Amino acid sequence: MDAANRAEEFRRRLDGAAEATEAALDALLAPTALPGEITRPARLLEAMRYSTLGGGKRLRPFLVIESARLFGVEGASALRTACALEMIHCYSLVHDDLPAMDDDDLRRGRPTAHKAFDEATAILSGDGLLTYAFDVVADPATHPDGALRAALVLALARAAGLGGMVGGQALDLAAEAAATPLDQAETLQMQAMKTGALLRFAVDAGAILGGATPQQAAALHRYGKALGAAFQIADDILDAEGDTAALGKRAGKDAERGKATLVALLGLDAARARCDALVNEATAALAETGLGERTEVLAEAARFVAARRS
Amino acid sequence: MDAANRAEEFRRRLDGAAEATEAALDALLAPTALPGEITRPARLLEAMRYSTLGGGKRLRPFLVIESARLFGVEGASALRTACALEMIHCYSLVHDDLPAMDDDDLRRGRPTAHKAFDEATAILSGDGLLTYAFDVVADPATHPDGALRAALVLALARAAGLGGMVGGQALDLAAEAAATPLDQAETLQMQAMKTGALLRFAVDAGAILGGATPQQAAALHRYGKALGAAFQIADDILDAEGDTAALGKRAGKDAERGKATLVALLGLDAARARCDALVNEATAALAETGLGERTEVLAEAARFVAARRS
Repeated sequence: MDAANRAEEFRRRLDGAAEATEAALDALLAPTALPGEITRPARLLEAMRYSTLGGGKRLRPFLVIESARLFGVEGASALRTACALEMIHCYSLVHDDLPAMDDDDLRRGRPTAHKAFDEATAILSGDGLLTYAFDVVADPATHPDGALRAALVLALARAAGLGGMVGGQALDLAAEAAATPLDQAETLQMQAMKTGALLRFAVDAGAILGGATPQQAAALHRYGKALGAAFQIADDILDAEGDTAALGKRAGKDAERGKATLVALLGLDAARARCDALVNEATAALAETGLGERTEVLAEAARFVAARRS
Repeated sequence: MDAANRAEEFRRRLDGAAEATEAALDALLAPTALPGEITRPARLLEAMRYSTLGGGKRLRPFLVIESARLFGVEGASALRTACALEMIHCYSLVHDDLPAMDDDDLRRGRPTAHKAFDEATAILSGDGLLTYAFDVVADPATHPDGALRAALVLALARAAGLGGMVGGQALDLAAEAAATPLDQAETLQMQAMKTGALLRFAVDAGAILGGATPQQAAALHRYGKALGAAFQIADDILDAEGDTAALGKRAGKDAERGKATLVALLGLDAARARCDALVNEATAALAETGLGERTEVLAEAARFVAARRS
């Protein structure tokens, strides 16, 4: 496949994953209570749907689905895991946007949840999404093997929790309030937690679902790590260049807030070079899975993520 | 066993469960990162420990441990499940106390988390506890059977989520803001979600861990349902009678806020009578497990819960 075809195939797969995820999330967040639920309060459900449906490229779901597909796994197993991951991503945005946190009014070009609803509903809708993510993964509908479901729950919780995403947000907020900015190592650690952990989980989930060998799982994990770092740098570059439209949220706010980014630490050119190097790392890791051309769509994903910079 | 001995034995078991839970929570919330975690940020961890350690009767852990013990299950399986449930209970208190929710300054006789730390840290520590609860249950250290761990995760998520505890809090907040108060059926439904769901999970968890027959599981579930309802009425009575010391939080605030309670709907005497009837329901359900005198400590727990009223 040449570069243009690869890009086209990637786009087709990305859009396909987004459509499938949207439909599955819509069904999961239906008004009907599941066995063991008493009722799904309408306004709370509406807020959960508001923050989950109708937005985003669904990069994380795409990575789950395509990583699982490397091993021939398709269908509900990957899609439900993808939805759970997306719920956790979306809840984190809702809570991060709160007045006590980043205090943002705009997200994906729409009012943030606490603006569209109210602060209490935003907090609870985040709690509801986070909780529901584990419900979705643990449900037998996700996979017939209970031990595999438990492994997915464990990996997801560990990626999303105090030693991962939640901890990363705590470190980021602490850095904003601190007198001295984070150094490069601290910035990389914070970003590996705040943004990286969920992206790594996406490909780890594919390895779990697909029954990857330890070598394949480790290679995919390295891919996810490089991809996550590239993703964060590209986001920081986009913010520094002030492209609000491409970001879907207000640009330029990192510098305003003295936020720790590699752009601030290294400058734009070095940040761009690092982003390219990470793409190479990502594609090299894919080669080590021994899965050959099946990994091409994931390699293209790394290039896509890095190309978010304008 | 006579009444005095039963009460003494119950107290011994309750205190024992509280001690074991405290020690296990302390170990789970240690500074050392687990495999897959990058680091545990100190201040975030401190806030999680603040809201989890050193307080409460640990009624929910006690119920998990004693329900599992009915079937001869003791040790790490029950204790870790108990800790996970307590983490979810504690996170819910942290989030419910936030300025945007109940706006409380005092909890268990100490400043609430957002007062002792700050609002962002309180929100994140709640998110961290909620996430970690599922980590703890899904970890192989909890039980060798992965399918059983997945079943525990599913039951816990469903009890804690939008159709359970989180939904109950949403309904409670909506009721406070509404022009007309909740009627009796709506109040019971809200309370069955907000307070009841986690208490029911506690005994459901015992049935899952213990490999209960469907009949035994259903009987225990009925017990948990009656116990949860009695617990809520006793709490409402305590609040109405204004006993801040026994509550460990400011009393009298339900009436101030026009909060939906059975005391407000039925009056104190009828609420007390209903509480007694629920204790009878609870003990009758225990008899249906066919587990005989082993259930005595749980029967005593129901009487204890109802006797919280002064």
